[in-house]
Amino acid sequence: MKSNMAWTLASRPLGQAEESNFRWIETALPELSDGDVLVRTLWLSLDPTNRAWMNDVDGYLPSLKLGEVMRGIAIGRVEESRSPAFAAGDIVQGMLGWQKYYAGSAKGLTKLPPIPLPLTAHFGLLGHIGLTAYFGVVEVGQAKAGETMVVTTAAGAVGSLAAQIGKILGLRVVGIAGGAEKCRWLTEDLGLDAAIDYKNEDVGAALDRECPAGIDVDFENVGGAMLDAILARINIGARIALCGLISQYNASRPVPGPYQFANLLVRRGRVQGFIVLDYLHRAGEAARQLIAWHLEGKLKYRLDIVEGLEQAPAALLKLFDGRNTGKLLVRVGEE
Amino acid sequence: MKSNMAWTLASRPLGQAEESNFRWIETALPELSDGDVLVRTLWLSLDPTNRAWMNDVDGYLPSLKLGEVMRGIAIGRVEESRSPAFAAGDIVQGMLGWQKYYAGSAKGLTKLPPIPLPLTAHFGLLGHIGLTAYFGVVEVGQAKAGETMVVTTAAGAVGSLAAQIGKILGLRVVGIAGGAEKCRWLTEDLGLDAAIDYKNEDVGAALDRECPAGIDVDFENVGGAMLDAILARINIGARIALCGLISQYNASRPVPGPYQFANLLVRRGRVQGFIVLDYLHRAGEAARQLIAWHLEGKLKYRLDIVEGLEQAPAALLKLFDGRNTGKLLVRVGEE
Repeated sequence: MKSNMAWTLASRPLGQAEESNFRWIETALPELSDGDVLVRTLWLSLDPTNRAWMNDVDGYLPSLKLGEVMRGIAIGRVEESRSPAFAAGDIVQGMLGWQKYYAGSAKGLTKLPPIPLPLTAHFGLLGHIGLTAYFGVVEVGQAKAGETMVVTTAAGAVGSLAAQIGKILGLRVVGIAGGAEKCRWLTEDLGLDAAIDYKNEDVGAALDRECPAGIDVDFENVGGAMLDAILARINIGARIALCGLISQYNASRPVPGPYQFANLLVRRGRVQGFIVLDYLHRAGEAARQLIAWHLEGKLKYRLDIVEGLEQAPAALLKLFDGRNTGKLLVRVGEE
Repeated sequence: MKSNMAWTLASRPLGQAEESNFRWIETALPELSDGDVLVRTLWLSLDPTNRAWMNDVDGYLPSLKLGEVMRGIAIGRVEESRSPAFAAGDIVQGMLGWQKYYAGSAKGLTKLPPIPLPLTAHFGLLGHIGLTAYFGVVEVGQAKAGETMVVTTAAGAVGSLAAQIGKILGLRVVGIAGGAEKCRWLTEDLGLDAAIDYKNEDVGAALDRECPAGIDVDFENVGGAMLDAILARINIGARIALCGLISQYNASRPVPGPYQFANLLVRRGRVQGFIVLDYLHRAGEAARQLIAWHLEGKLKYRLDIVEGLEQAPAALLKLFDGRNTGKLLVRVGEE
């Protein structure tokens, strides 16, 4: 049997996750059975939702058990296949986990189509990141030209795509991000109408200034006080595309919903939770559009590449303290 | 000038409204100008939203000023008209206010069509009550046969219609109400599948028992802990038709939103606030359907009639302490 290196879930975090919640172990790779594949991991995606997977709560995926390999979406190359659906050399994406090799059922893996972009674009522009941004703005947010859209975590991987899609569709787009450098990137490089630096200005006052016609669409990744500042300023018929609630993933006690909840009634607003898994059947449509916009120069993405699987736990923490810019990836193996 | 009797808003309640927030005064009726009508009030509707109108906050209608006649929806008979749209003898509905006579602009008044039911059916079965129930279940709730719907304040005027509409459309319907007598009425007289007495049992445990397949639609009038118990049990793709938040209309400090707000994300649920004013253009369609269902014996309504405008403030309080059953009306004048 070959040997493998993996990060397992050693303990569940209370509040903020820590590196000590993970354990770096060597495991033996099992022999393949019929229907199995052996995949060498190339790129591992790190996302805020990874933190939620560490809790002992079944969410949209079942809870991870202690001692299991940490769950993670990754791209890899098939080394051996006993599945008719894959051949050695295929590039695949799926829940390969935080490990150098995945050996197991081929079910749930997707063969990636060739694209006129580097492999990392599957995570930075396409895949769950791009589809979340695309369907969140177009379908859930029902964004219409001339409206005003606010995007929280606008400098993040999903948020920066969502904000640019809003601009492409003809909306006034106001991004919220932490720090002058991220805000400069949003307005100068990505072309947003305005960016609000939540670390250095009052978000409510800034929204009053930058959304003079109120807010029609909110691409929401944060929750908490930021969501309240937005809900207080929604127009009649506003749509809140609820993509994430990063402000509370680390909470160790119950978190109240927005204090402005009643404004949904007064303003006939809508909050719609969504996850990308519900839109996989339309992935092709979204990917073609996202690639076309990118090749036309209208839709940029930025990568934050961490070298080596050993760095994954430390890198994950960057997502929660604002240090991260662009799609966070770990280079696990050479292409 | 004729004289008139009216209730004005004397002071704004802090928390629960009291009779002392209103003042009973005699006023002089002005001479009519072009475009005006004089209307004698017959029936005044009392609704939970009246309490929200007493706050110094612009909601879906502008805030009422101190000293103004209390706002109220009423049915009356035109006594004099200087509007081409109305003639003496017409039966009209509109914001006539808490007064024996309305003298003013005919704008905003609607001539009521003849119906094969008593005038009070315009409030008990049709009008804002019936339309709220109809569009809340059909459009906002997107109720589908075979699904499970929960209705809060199910023994109330709107809730009891919403629950029955759910049954007509083929859903499993579970009502929540306060007290054994109301619950008996819901299951035995209205045919709901189950009723939960929130005063005498744990709502969460009862929902587990009565909604074994989870909750697909919530017709929500309450908010607070009751909404949390429901949100904790929603199915993927659930719709919360947010019709009212009676648990917080009397609040004198900010009220947190539901603690289960994050479940909207996990379950891809939707909260959609709505008010009947957005559906007035489809009032005819709804009224025809509601009348037909009633005449077929499938849709019952109950009236709670208070005699005399003098009783209006005391009667309004009944809406907030659970004493009221059926649509609350004040008989202001003889038909």
